[in-house]
Amino acid sequence: MRKVVLYIAVSIDGYIADKKGSVDFIEGDGSDKNNMGSYDIFYNSIDTVILGKNTYEQIINELSPDKWVYKDKFSYVITSEKIENKENIIFTNELYKTIDNLKKEKGKDIWICGGASIVNQLLEKDYIDKIQLTIIPTILGEGIKLFNNFNKEIKLKLESTKNYNGFVDLVYIKR
Amino acid sequence: MRKVVLYIAVSIDGYIADKKGSVDFIEGDGSDKNNMGSYDIFYNSIDTVILGKNTYEQIINELSPDKWVYKDKFSYVITSEKIENKENIIFTNELYKTIDNLKKEKGKDIWICGGASIVNQLLEKDYIDKIQLTIIPTILGEGIKLFNNFNKEIKLKLESTKNYNGFVDLVYIKR
Repeated sequence: MRKVVLYIAVSIDGYIADKKGSVDFIEGDGSDKNNMGSYDIFYNSIDTVILGKNTYEQIINELSPDKWVYKDKFSYVITSEKIENKENIIFTNELYKTIDNLKKEKGKDIWICGGASIVNQLLEKDYIDKIQLTIIPTILGEGIKLFNNFNKEIKLKLESTKNYNGFVDLVYIKR
Repeated sequence: MRKVVLYIAVSIDGYIADKKGSVDFIEGDGSDKNNMGSYDIFYNSIDTVILGKNTYEQIINELSPDKWVYKDKFSYVITSEKIENKENIIFTNELYKTIDNLKKEKGKDIWICGGASIVNQLLEKDYIDKIQLTIIPTILGEGIKLFNNFNKEIKLKLESTKNYNGFVDLVYIKR
């Protein structure tokens, strides 16, 4: 069955963005600059992207203003605002129901792309099947945390690790 | 020259203890129970342990009430209380000066054993030469954070990684 996969880059101290919301800190240590790691393999393993409105706006306004980066995938932007759908981008306020419906359909894995609000809502309700964190070789000091406090301990099983250019991919599945 | 090494276990979401201060969550995923990882190699590489008063009390009251666990090392407990020294345990309120003096002497590496207060004081003043984190395969949800907020970004170089029984050791040095 298709899996719901959190795949996200995080600093050593657990931040996914700096205090301004920027992801400029996402860089390796320069030891192997041409190694792109497992992004391409991951990207080919999914056909659907789920992301929050802030993450969406960061992509279209800052990271890739010229073209929608995931145009070959189905994208779902979770927002309470009423926004008209675009080609391959659906705007919805239904996070859980969207995933429930997607899991009934056949397809590749579903990428939970961020941000922190969506991640924590899904972790609390046990919606995430696999977690792939790319640890950035930086202690950022402050910023937007990936994990919020919640009253739940989640024990995981380490599936694999991979290093490249100072990054470390940690892949966990449910125990 | 002897290095100042932070070696500590941390949950995926960055906690070194649960909200009660307990480290009961430190366990592997059961995939290779007999593999103790690199603790012995690390322990042989140091001759000095620096720890805070809370960490010290946790060790003598809960983790090892019968005998002092680091009796074959020189231990420095950082505290503002005046406490009489014991065999191989020195109580001092001088964190930085203790390390300055130790680095002038010949010896093996110096282990920064915790807790968070000491770690963050040393990171802010650039006193830590090497960071070895053992990532526990658990999202703890709440507890005592390893890294506090501070207005400083520290870029590191990945030296090595190692997996065993669901744990991942991440070893970083200064870039």
